[in-house]
Amino acid sequence: MVYDLLIIGGGPAGYRAAERAGHYKMNVALFEQRSLGGVCLNEGCMPTKTLLYSAKLYDYANGVSAHYGVTSENAKIDHKAVIERKNKVVKTLVNGVAMQMKQAKVNVVKATAKVAGKNPDGTFNVIANGETYVGKKLLIASGSNAAVPPIPGLKEALAANIAMTNREILDMTENISSLIVMGGGVIGLEMASYFNSIGVKVTVVEMMDRIGGPTDLDMTKLLKAEYEKRGVTFMLSTKVTELKGNKVMIENANGKSELTADKILVSIGRRANSADLGYETIGLFMERGAVKTDDEMKTNVPNVWAAGDINGKSMLAHTAYREAEVAVNNMLGIKDKMVYNAIPAVIYTNPEVSSVGETAETAKAKGFKIKEVKLPMQFAGRYIAENDGGNGIMKLITLADSGRIIGANMIGNPSSEIIYGMAIAIARNLTCKDMSRVVFPHPTVGEVFREAIINETNEI
Amino acid sequence: MVYDLLIIGGGPAGYRAAERAGHYKMNVALFEQRSLGGVCLNEGCMPTKTLLYSAKLYDYANGVSAHYGVTSENAKIDHKAVIERKNKVVKTLVNGVAMQMKQAKVNVVKATAKVAGKNPDGTFNVIANGETYVGKKLLIASGSNAAVPPIPGLKEALAANIAMTNREILDMTENISSLIVMGGGVIGLEMASYFNSIGVKVTVVEMMDRIGGPTDLDMTKLLKAEYEKRGVTFMLSTKVTELKGNKVMIENANGKSELTADKILVSIGRRANSADLGYETIGLFMERGAVKTDDEMKTNVPNVWAAGDINGKSMLAHTAYREAEVAVNNMLGIKDKMVYNAIPAVIYTNPEVSSVGETAETAKAKGFKIKEVKLPMQFAGRYIAENDGGNGIMKLITLADSGRIIGANMIGNPSSEIIYGMAIAIARNLTCKDMSRVVFPHPTVGEVFREAIINETNEI
Repeated sequence: MVYDLLIIGGGPAGYRAAERAGHYKMNVALFEQRSLGGVCLNEGCMPTKTLLYSAKLYDYANGVSAHYGVTSENAKIDHKAVIERKNKVVKTLVNGVAMQMKQAKVNVVKATAKVAGKNPDGTFNVIANGETYVGKKLLIASGSNAAVPPIPGLKEALAANIAMTNREILDMTENISSLIVMGGGVIGLEMASYFNSIGVKVTVVEMMDRIGGPTDLDMTKLLKAEYEKRGVTFMLSTKVTELKGNKVMIENANGKSELTADKILVSIGRRANSADLGYETIGLFMERGAVKTDDEMKTNVPNVWAAGDINGKSMLAHTAYREAEVAVNNMLGIKDKMVYNAIPAVIYTNPEVSSVGETAETAKAKGFKIKEVKLPMQFAGRYIAENDGGNGIMKLITLADSGRIIGANMIGNPSSEIIYGMAIAIARNLTCKDMSRVVFPHPTVGEVFREAIINETNEI
Repeated sequence: MVYDLLIIGGGPAGYRAAERAGHYKMNVALFEQRSLGGVCLNEGCMPTKTLLYSAKLYDYANGVSAHYGVTSENAKIDHKAVIERKNKVVKTLVNGVAMQMKQAKVNVVKATAKVAGKNPDGTFNVIANGETYVGKKLLIASGSNAAVPPIPGLKEALAANIAMTNREILDMTENISSLIVMGGGVIGLEMASYFNSIGVKVTVVEMMDRIGGPTDLDMTKLLKAEYEKRGVTFMLSTKVTELKGNKVMIENANGKSELTADKILVSIGRRANSADLGYETIGLFMERGAVKTDDEMKTNVPNVWAAGDINGKSMLAHTAYREAEVAVNNMLGIKDKMVYNAIPAVIYTNPEVSSVGETAETAKAKGFKIKEVKLPMQFAGRYIAENDGGNGIMKLITLADSGRIIGANMIGNPSSEIIYGMAIAIARNLTCKDMSRVVFPHPTVGEVFREAIINETNEI
C-alpha cells in the first residue's frame, strides 16, 4: 500500500503531526525507534517536571512552610521513589500518546527508519524492520540528542557511567553526594535545582559569562544569587578541558584547576538527529546538521516537510507541536505559517523563569525603539501572600511608538502558567491599551502583567 | 479649595480611581472610615488567600507530599501564627496602597463621609470629621458588607461573637473544633476549605440545591465530592430558621433539625453600603440598595459616577478596578466602556475553580447556539505530574457558527492563574482558529486550554 504520509520520529512534532493528519483522514505511518513521545516525554520536559515538583514539596517540608505557620519534623525525600513515580508518570503519558495514535488510525512502527530514495512516481521509500514503506509525503521529525563535545576523556566517562546526559541522569536511582553540571542552560539549571534541593553538592560550569543562555540577564542574575544562597557553586566563563574519571579539569581567567564529583552531567546543548537516516538519498538540504525549512515547514524537496528539533530552529516541544500543525495544514492546502516571535520559554527552577518574545537586549539588537517596564512581582498581592520574602521581577517590552507588546520576562512562581497570556498578546499584536481593557482575576500573581500594562501606558 | 474629584470609599474601586485620577493630575480627596484597601485587602480576597496558602502547605505536609516521595512527621499548623502572618501581609498591602495615594498626591481623609448636597455652582459637598469638602466630581465607591438576614437569634449570636461574618472570622485566633457555614458561595467555600484543612469539623448549609452559585454545576459537584471525601458535610436546599446561641435550627425536605458548632459563619451574600451616606441629598437613583450606573459608570446625576460593589453589578475586586478606570477615563473624556462578558471568577479552594464568561447553562439561557468541549485536566501532562490522582476538568464554550470563545470553566490547580488568558480570548473576540496559532509553553497545565481549542475546531 501507499501511505499518504510517512513520519520519521514519534516525539512532539511527529506524534502531533500524526494525530492531526489522522484527524484529517490521511493514512499515516509513524516510525519511532525508542518510545513514543520522544525526548520531551521520556527524558526531557515531563520527567524533569515530575522531579522538580517533588523537590518543591521537599523544600516546603524542609523549612519553607515554617514561614507560613506550618511545621513538621524529619523531612525526607526518597530519590528512588521520586524516580519510580517519574517512570509511572512517563508511562501514563506515553500510553496517552499511543492511544491518540490508535484513535487517529496511525500505523506506529517501532523501529529505526531510514529514508531510501524517491520512486519514479514521486513517492518516497522508508525502510524499517527490513520492510519498505511507501508514502506520498514525508515528514522529517527525527529530533535531537545531547551534544557531546570532543573533550578528552568525556567519551570514556560517559561509557563508565560517571558522566551522563539528561537521558541517563533521569534514570539514576542511586543517591549521590556531589554533581558537576557541564553547561548552565535550561537542562543544566533544572537538574542543578533538583539535586541541590535533595541535598547534593552541585557545581555548575558554564563557558559563557551568564547562565540561562539568552534569558534576560537581570532574571538569571537573580536566579544565580538565589541558588548560590542555597549552596550551588557557579563557575562562569569556565571551560572544561579534560575529564579523568570523575575529575574535571577546568580553565578560566584564574588559570587551570580541577573539580571532583560523584557524577557529571553533560548538558551543553542539543544536536539534530540527522546522521545515518538516509536523508541524502532524497537530496535533503541541510545546514550544520539541521534540515532547512521555510515558514511552511517545507524542505527543499517537494512533498517533504520537517518539524521539531531536526530543523534546529527553536528546539522546544511546544515549537515542535506548532511546526507539526503548520506542516500538516500545508499538506492539506490550509493556509498557515510558522511565526517565531511569540514562543514562550520556561526554566522550571524554583523560582521559575519565564519569557516570551524579546528581551530589551534582543529588541535593541534588532534596532527596535522600545519601552521597558520593570516591576517587582510584589506588585501582585498574591505573590506577597504566597512568596514570603520573594524578590521576583517582571519586565514588559513594548514598541515605543505604538505600545505594542513584543516581549515579557518574569522570575517568580507560577510564571510558567502565566506567560502564555503574554504570548497571546504578542501573537495577536495587542497594545498595552488593548490589554488594559481586559479584566484579570484578583488576587492572582498574573496581575503583575496588568500592573505593567497600566504602568506602560499613559492613557488606559 | 475645590477638589477635582471626591471619592467615597478607599477599597479597590476608590483607590484605583484615586491613583488613576492623580496620575492624570486631578486634585483628589478620598474618604475611608476604616483601613485603605477596603474589604478586599483587609477582610476578603487577600487575607483568605494568605490563610488558604498556609492550609495548602499543611495539606502537603499532612499526607499529600507522600505521593511524591516526600515525607515528614508530626505536621502542625499554628492557626494563630497563620492569622498573625495574615495581619502582616495585609499591613504590607495597605501600606502599599497608602504609598500609591501619596505618589498620586491624593488627600486621604480617614473618616466617615457623608454626601451633603449640591451647590449652586454644580459642585458637591462631602462632610467628614466635621469639615466640608467641596468637589467638582464625585465617585461613589462605598462598597458592600456581609448581608445579615432577619433570622431570629442571628443578631444576638453575632453580638455574642458566636456567629461571625468574614470580617470577624478572619481575625479569630482561637482554635475551634467545629464550624457551621451559612451559605455555600465563594466566601463560605473558601473558609470551609481552610477550616477543614486545619482539622475543624465543617458543615455547610446552603439554601440552593447547589454550591458556588452560578458556577458550572459539573465543577461544583466535583468540588463538593472532594470536600465530602475530606469530611465536610454539605446540607443543600436547607434553610436556617433560627439561631439559639451556638445551636442552628434548620429545615429541609427531611423536616426540621438542629446543628451545633463552636462558631457560625454568616456568608449568605453581600449588600451595597448605601445607607446613611447622604446619597439622597443629591437625588442619586438607587435600585434595591445599589447605585444604578450605565456602561460608563455614570449615575443619574451629572458628574457623579459609581464603581465597585456599590453598583451591585459584579461585586468582585477586579471588576471594581476596571469600573474605576472606566469612570476616570470618562471623567477625562477618554472613550471607554465597561463590558461584563469576560470577567473571571475564582473560588480559591483546593482545587481551585475558575471561570470566565458563559457556562453552557448561562449561554443556553441567553439563546446562544453553542459548542461545548469538555476535557479532563489530565490532557495536560504537567497536571498529571503535579496532581497525583487529580480528576479536574475544563470546559470551553464557543459559538457554534463562528467558533468564537465565549466561556471557559476549570476545576484544578493553578486554574486561577490560567483563567486570565481565556479572559483575553473572550474580551478580544478570538475564535478557536485564532487561538490555535498561539504557542503555549510546554509542559504547563494551561495547555489543556490549547487542547480544548484544537478539539473544538476541525481546521486548525
